[in-house]
Amino acid sequence: MSSAIITPRTHIHRVRVEFGDCDPAGIVWFPNFFRWIDAASRHFFVTCGVPPWRETEQALGVIGTPIVDTHTRFMRTASYGDTLDIHVQVPEWRGKSFVQRYRVMRGDTTILECDEVRIFAGRREDGSIFAMPAPPQIRSLCE
Amino acid sequence: MSSAIITPRTHIHRVRVEFGDCDPAGIVWFPNFFRWIDAASRHFFVTCGVPPWRETEQALGVIGTPIVDTHTRFMRTASYGDTLDIHVQVPEWRGKSFVQRYRVMRGDTTILECDEVRIFAGRREDGSIFAMPAPPQIRSLCE
Amino acid sequence: MSSAIITPRTHIHRVRVEFGDCDPAGIVWFPNFFRWIDAASRHFFVTCGVPPWRETEQALGVIGTPIVDTHTRFMRTASYGDTLDIHVQVPEWRGKSFVQRYRVMRGDTTILECDEVRIFAGRREDGSIFAMPAPPQIRSLCE
Amino acid sequence: MSSAIITPRTHIHRVRVEFGDCDPAGIVWFPNFFRWIDAASRHFFVTCGVPPWRETEQALGVIGTPIVDTHTRFMRTASYGDTLDIHVQVPEWRGKSFVQRYRVMRGDTTILECDEVRIFAGRREDGSIFAMPAPPQIRSLCE
Repeated sequence: MSSAIITPRTHIHRVRVEFGDCDPAGIVWFPNFFRWIDAASRHFFVTCGVPPWRETEQALGVIGTPIVDTHTRFMRTASYGDTLDIHVQVPEWRGKSFVQRYRVMRGDTTILECDEVRIFAGRREDGSIFAMPAPPQIRSLCE
Repeated sequence: MSSAIITPRTHIHRVRVEFGDCDPAGIVWFPNFFRWIDAASRHFFVTCGVPPWRETEQALGVIGTPIVDTHTRFMRTASYGDTLDIHVQVPEWRGKSFVQRYRVMRGDTTILECDEVRIFAGRREDGSIFAMPAPPQIRSLCE
Repeated sequence: MSSAIITPRTHIHRVRVEFGDCDPAGIVWFPNFFRWIDAASRHFFVTCGVPPWRETEQALGVIGTPIVDTHTRFMRTASYGDTLDIHVQVPEWRGKSFVQRYRVMRGDTTILECDEVRIFAGRREDGSIFAMPAPPQIRSLCE
Repeated sequence: MSSAIITPRTHIHRVRVEFGDCDPAGIVWFPNFFRWIDAASRHFFVTCGVPPWRETEQALGVIGTPIVDTHTRFMRTASYGDTLDIHVQVPEWRGKSFVQRYRVMRGDTTILECDEVRIFAGRREDGSIFAMPAPPQIRSLCE
């Protein structure tokens, strides 16, 4: 009897690198990779059918999925004119957080790899935010 | 005979958080922390007396210090009106790379901690970049 | 009897140009000037004593001062290492809008000049925003 | 005998608005519109068949098309989840500059209109840039 091997759902988010995304060395200025990764994170959920955060805030109290940890390895540079495909997965669901994994590809070349921990965030009356358990309605859409 | 304890040089880079640095949740959108960290990285070298990269490119072939790895832990949120102090050190010099460490503080509160690996980059004739040993003239200014 | 000549209040907002603010041509990528101008706009009000927008939203229904028109002339380039002083004034108050004027200087050199029209914005129940008359409490602080 | 009416070539550049493009008021932070407009400007030339600036710099001495003037009218707000189409034209070629015009649409709704003046820039030995006449090879591709 074999154990089931579950491949987690993968979303691919395509990005064009623009002139203004590059620095005086002519390569992508690295904070821009995090702009694209954050967009890829949200599009993963959108593709799963999760409504915009402005709606989940009303319905479930979830204002978004802020990051609490990132470990990112930059393996190749990129420049304007490049098209990048960001492969996104959620390989692990934890109680009040989850791991989101990214591989940024230019064709067959890996540009960077990134593992994040994010939380589902609610907001307290005083405006501060807190981690809440992943709402089952959201998690069931994404697994 | 006691072993010397060397505390590495620390530079503090001050940042004001602006309205436009924050997202619809009202908190700093995390890629902006990397904008500030990258500026803090460069100001560390500027404060040590290292010339601008456009001059080191002429003199030493160094076009900058691109990042190859970041591990960042986001511990508290920040918002516009906050003043942040980014404490920067280089705790470790390696052959062709170095570790740069950041602690982002709002008063006594730690907002995030970040450990990076960066390289001193040169440029080949075909435009691609490569890691070179830290030039002694730069390293001696910074230790 | 002479007519009074009123010089409008001027706020100076200082900015350091960073490596990552520059593009592959080595000069400030122009959208970054608008980042700094927007920060200078807000600091003008902060310096006048106007509370943060998150507080004016509670007290006066003002969620901010979105832009409706900009006319900007880029006269000189800037690059990393430059320090820029943005001189900000409100030369004209209108019914539901105002003119905000900026001169970006590097020492005695004018880098750009910008005239904006902005509104005081409120928010409707459906989330859309609308122009409201400048609240007298705010205007009296700034004139 | 009728005079010919020439409609200038139009390129449409599509943009998705992301969460991080929006500010605490929940709407696009306006400097981001200029990021997209600058990308639309370059894609206009790319679509016409003009090579990347890194190649025109070698072949023609053109390092890019920096902006010297913008007049922009913001007519509607946009937010994350919106898809925007930026319609780009060059309605006027002048000696050493040209007018580039943008209309940002969300479906049938005009979000903003923008008229820019840009130059074809060369670089002097001292690193400063200057306006040069539009190279005929580029202009003939775009008219």
